[in-house]
Amino acid sequence: MAASEESLRKALAEKLSAVEAQGNAVRALKAAKVSKPEIDAAIEALNNLKLEKSSIEKQLQAAVSGGDGDGALSREAFRQAAVNTLERRLFYIPSFKIYRGVAGLYDYGPPGCAVKSNVLAFWRQHFVLEENMLEVDCPCVTPEVVLKASGHVDKFTDLMVKDEKTGTCYRADHLLKDFCNEKLQKDLTISAEKAAELKHVLATLDDLSAEDLGAKIKEYGITAPDTKNPLSDPYPFNLMFQTSIGPSGLSPGYMRPETAQGIFVNFKDLYYYNGNKLPFAAAQIGQAFRNEISPRQGLLRVREFTLAEIEHFVDPEDKSHPKYSEVADLEFLMFPREEQMSGQSAKKIRLGDAVSKGIVNNETLGYFIGRVYLFLARLGIDKDRLRFRQHLANEMAHYAADCWDAEIECSYGWIECVGIADRSAYDLRAHSEKSGVPLVAAEKFSEPREVEKLVIAPVKKELGLAFKGNQKNVVEALEAMNEKEALEMKAALESKGEVEFYVCTLGKNVPIKKNMVSISKEKKKEHQRVFTPSVIEPSFGIGRIIYCLFEHSFYTRPSKAGDEQLNVFRFPPLVAPIKCTVFPLVQNQQYEDVAKVISKSLTAAGISHKIDITGTSIGKRYARTDELGVPFAITVDSTTDVTIRERDCKLQVRVGVEEAASVVKSVTDGHRTWEDVWEKFPHHTSGPADD
Amino acid sequence: MAASEESLRKALAEKLSAVEAQGNAVRALKAAKVSKPEIDAAIEALNNLKLEKSSIEKQLQAAVSGGDGDGALSREAFRQAAVNTLERRLFYIPSFKIYRGVAGLYDYGPPGCAVKSNVLAFWRQHFVLEENMLEVDCPCVTPEVVLKASGHVDKFTDLMVKDEKTGTCYRADHLLKDFCNEKLQKDLTISAEKAAELKHVLATLDDLSAEDLGAKIKEYGITAPDTKNPLSDPYPFNLMFQTSIGPSGLSPGYMRPETAQGIFVNFKDLYYYNGNKLPFAAAQIGQAFRNEISPRQGLLRVREFTLAEIEHFVDPEDKSHPKYSEVADLEFLMFPREEQMSGQSAKKIRLGDAVSKGIVNNETLGYFIGRVYLFLARLGIDKDRLRFRQHLANEMAHYAADCWDAEIECSYGWIECVGIADRSAYDLRAHSEKSGVPLVAAEKFSEPREVEKLVIAPVKKELGLAFKGNQKNVVEALEAMNEKEALEMKAALESKGEVEFYVCTLGKNVPIKKNMVSISKEKKKEHQRVFTPSVIEPSFGIGRIIYCLFEHSFYTRPSKAGDEQLNVFRFPPLVAPIKCTVFPLVQNQQYEDVAKVISKSLTAAGISHKIDITGTSIGKRYARTDELGVPFAITVDSTTDVTIRERDCKLQVRVGVEEAASVVKSVTDGHRTWEDVWEKFPHHTSGPADD
Repeated sequence: MAASEESLRKALAEKLSAVEAQGNAVRALKAAKVSKPEIDAAIEALNNLKLEKSSIEKQLQAAVSGGDGDGALSREAFRQAAVNTLERRLFYIPSFKIYRGVAGLYDYGPPGCAVKSNVLAFWRQHFVLEENMLEVDCPCVTPEVVLKASGHVDKFTDLMVKDEKTGTCYRADHLLKDFCNEKLQKDLTISAEKAAELKHVLATLDDLSAEDLGAKIKEYGITAPDTKNPLSDPYPFNLMFQTSIGPSGLSPGYMRPETAQGIFVNFKDLYYYNGNKLPFAAAQIGQAFRNEISPRQGLLRVREFTLAEIEHFVDPEDKSHPKYSEVADLEFLMFPREEQMSGQSAKKIRLGDAVSKGIVNNETLGYFIGRVYLFLARLGIDKDRLRFRQHLANEMAHYAADCWDAEIECSYGWIECVGIADRSAYDLRAHSEKSGVPLVAAEKFSEPREVEKLVIAPVKKELGLAFKGNQKNVVEALEAMNEKEALEMKAALESKGEVEFYVCTLGKNVPIKKNMVSISKEKKKEHQRVFTPSVIEPSFGIGRIIYCLFEHSFYTRPSKAGDEQLNVFRFPPLVAPIKCTVFPLVQNQQYEDVAKVISKSLTAAGISHKIDITGTSIGKRYARTDELGVPFAITVDSTTDVTIRERDCKLQVRVGVEEAASVVKSVTDGHRTWEDVWEKFPHHTSGPADD
Repeated sequence: MAASEESLRKALAEKLSAVEAQGNAVRALKAAKVSKPEIDAAIEALNNLKLEKSSIEKQLQAAVSGGDGDGALSREAFRQAAVNTLERRLFYIPSFKIYRGVAGLYDYGPPGCAVKSNVLAFWRQHFVLEENMLEVDCPCVTPEVVLKASGHVDKFTDLMVKDEKTGTCYRADHLLKDFCNEKLQKDLTISAEKAAELKHVLATLDDLSAEDLGAKIKEYGITAPDTKNPLSDPYPFNLMFQTSIGPSGLSPGYMRPETAQGIFVNFKDLYYYNGNKLPFAAAQIGQAFRNEISPRQGLLRVREFTLAEIEHFVDPEDKSHPKYSEVADLEFLMFPREEQMSGQSAKKIRLGDAVSKGIVNNETLGYFIGRVYLFLARLGIDKDRLRFRQHLANEMAHYAADCWDAEIECSYGWIECVGIADRSAYDLRAHSEKSGVPLVAAEKFSEPREVEKLVIAPVKKELGLAFKGNQKNVVEALEAMNEKEALEMKAALESKGEVEFYVCTLGKNVPIKKNMVSISKEKKKEHQRVFTPSVIEPSFGIGRIIYCLFEHSFYTRPSKAGDEQLNVFRFPPLVAPIKCTVFPLVQNQQYEDVAKVISKSLTAAGISHKIDITGTSIGKRYARTDELGVPFAITVDSTTDVTIRERDCKLQVRVGVEEAASVVKSVTDGHRTWEDVWEKFPHHTSGPADD
């Protein structure tokens, strides 16, 4: 808890007592009918105390709502303005709206769809093409066995509580979170200790078991938000959409919760396709599904979304990356585990330093963090509101070597948009075991190497005599010992002649004698090393990135007359839904013909654009396309020259009709900047009134 | 049935009787112990008859298996060669292979995925960008109400039979089809009449009801193919994957069977987005799902697939198209209804003639047929194996105005790959009714028009007296009359004073008297015409198009030594998975450095490529990339110049290192042809041995 907040809560509690005491004093004085000046003085003291109390209340209110008091409010207002524009201009639409929609499902309308397809095209260029990744495209419908192996059937759950009377379902952690936040923000009278307790609950929310959650809900007396009815105990709800494959009803399947499994199950073929060489990366873009219990936060928590995932397979003994030096000098906000634990904030770190100091586990992980940074920055994500946060030890799966999230700050707070994890060999091992198909790689030695190998040779005859029907279990358990266990047994047998040995498949200890097993180390020649590759997985939530991009690109500016606020999206040309609009200045056949000629050459150049031949004022037409984030507008006001206007600076240059399309193309393709254009072409000063 | 086949069947039956008769005659002669020469002569006659019989059998066999006897066999062999190459080079992979796969689910591996993404990018360019379509992106998960309105919940079914002992499911029509085909092809002894009957069953298979199908299965004694067990009666199985949205289990949902519904439910917003103007088109690319009963035919019948659909909304009174003239002169294979009914085959028709003669219902439908033709031809579909087949009257939904399928011939026969239908106002009306939200367009009149309008005014007081509690039903029924019904009632009331009137919500007739309703025609001024737009829907099965493209692109040619057949895909650069490979001729640092420089400039130019620095012979490396359909190979055999080889003609030119990437780019982008390159650059004659 911030020191100021804690002391404010203490001060408020003291002041409340003081107000109460002084109130009693005033009443006592009145009852005692003392002189008026005396009573007036006491009342004035009371009023002063009350003023001090409300001043502390205000400060505390400001402290709990994020520092500036109006912060939360203005974030809300900003979001509302952005979301209104996004929905009105069909960037996105609640799905099935005419049927009152379905929570957590959204459509991308025309401009949103164009932004999405630009983001995905750039992703392909930046990752797949640039890194020669093997892109695959697997179905969403997935048989149960695959998701059993991956752990999703058993563990991909959220804890849910039900309204005991109506059956309405809620996410248990959300109810607890809402309760704590509400208390902290609206009930200023709670003690500093209580506030600390609630903050602790919020901080550890993800670690709470079903029992812990249930106990807290009972303790705090939390009821169903809509009805105030009592709630059931929390129980796990699997978040996968279940279905049935084929007509028999006997083959359960799920809509995939991620695209990664499609890559893992193809590892063997992909490794072969890559000439049996490591490292290599496979990638997939596609839909994934999570049947959220009660989706909220608009586009950030949805039931169906597009993921773009990379699985980079690498020798666990060599996680260097050939192109690492290209990103080592990048510097951006990183938030290592240490800084989070000690209450500091994210800070700018040179990526190369983070890797060399061991903050980032290895070069390949570092390389992808750098590439993700470049990707997001190129899209138009504000670098100051982008940080790479390392997972705390308790956030990571036990098998993960290291994990960093690219988090982007928006009006909902810091949002995880890309996860970059070194998942070690977990996934390939899980599918190897379940399928019986070895998913391994081999390093061929240039010449055979001599290696020392542990050899465990159970003497079946003796074991059979001793353990009869249990012989097989004992043999298997002996053979499954790791090197340490085996060498300890060898030593014990040599010194004592007999040891107790736990056989898990029998659930008990059995006595092993010296003549029942031979344990030795032998030298062997090996021609290759066979191993399960590690996988480094950058996983992109495309919808979340796009939503944050919408917020980072949105701003308002006053109209020329100053009577209204106009909305603008400052999308870079790379992601802008339409690159260019073409306007005849006035409705006139000649100008319309010129507009059509320009439109044709834009189409030939592959530049998405729109002609607007309505008679609306040029200012209104500019405002309309600014709201869609269209970077350039070509206005036809003669048959030889036209003007090109840039969206954010609103400056215009004059360009010949034949050249217009190629100028726009060169800027949108990034082959030249607007500044170059501004320098080269005559400026347009008089002319059509801009907004 | 082909005349020759029918006469052959008759001839065979006659010959069989003749053989039998002659056999009897021989036996009779032997029994009668006539002279040896006499018996020998009879035996010779018998043998001659037998020879004639087998000759007819051979001809019949040839006739039923497609004309040339070896046709079916060579189609099989061709497919096997293509599919082997496709699977070995990971163009596609049976999904979840390490778990023994799931029927009807396939992954695209790296080259297949690249082809797919090229096809989709070109689709976007050719349709969405070129026609300024409004692209949307809606979820796959769809609530029941939407698919109830569209008719899929009730009617999207196939008829299924179950093995009565094992419960294994089969598609009823497939079993009947297989039975008929098997009989026709393998049992040469069936009569010409029987053969005609089986062919009639095959031709009318799609029209058979569950009862008809069940009766035929019984009549022919068809049993379960795997077990020979008896089969259940056919019953409908809904082909949608069902699931449940949210945790309550109370909101049934389905994985969408097509993407079109997402567009229809958004009509109102899209129409507004388009400035309340018609015509306009919306488009969507996305996954669709059909839970096939027993998928077969590889990539052609799958349980999950990518659809690209266009919904072009148009005023039903004006189906002209502004760009129609751009396609009117195209000439290609069309197969109108008439020609199909009269047993003719598809023929080349000028599109403009087909529209002007009314063979194609309207200009807009014609325009899209033309655009689809151009799209498929540009992809590399063989024009001689592409035809547009009109639906027969019994194939079309009752509401459809006209419907044409782009069918592509492959080893499985003619396959429907694109459907182009004028669906009239059906879909928008269905969703208007179900949702209560009017999905309509309006044509504003430049000046108000006077129109005659039917006015039905029930006299509630009289109706209340007569029908008491049923008054409301009667009023509603009266108001719902169409113009014809109302005018008939008016006439009847005027002549007879009373009529019987059927009220469907009451399920009975009621007597209506003259004083109970006033029916008149009044003149009104109207400012606009409100109507439900028609929709013209081109719907592309992307996976089917890609599979046919694979087959049309595949060929084999002998290696230089002539000792093996090499596989080649002749993909045009537009769809080729990789545009270019870069080979150092021999393993050597200098050449590898040059290769890397070229690779860098290819990446900068956005040309997907691959470096192959293995020491394999250049011929083998060419063969390897020919098999992936890579159109160009750059071989580095000096530090100043390199060779560029074209895949199909295998010719090579010499080009400077700095120029290599831009030459490849210009050809792959279609800005120049290989012929231009061949003319401009010096030819490479001596040098590395090609294959």
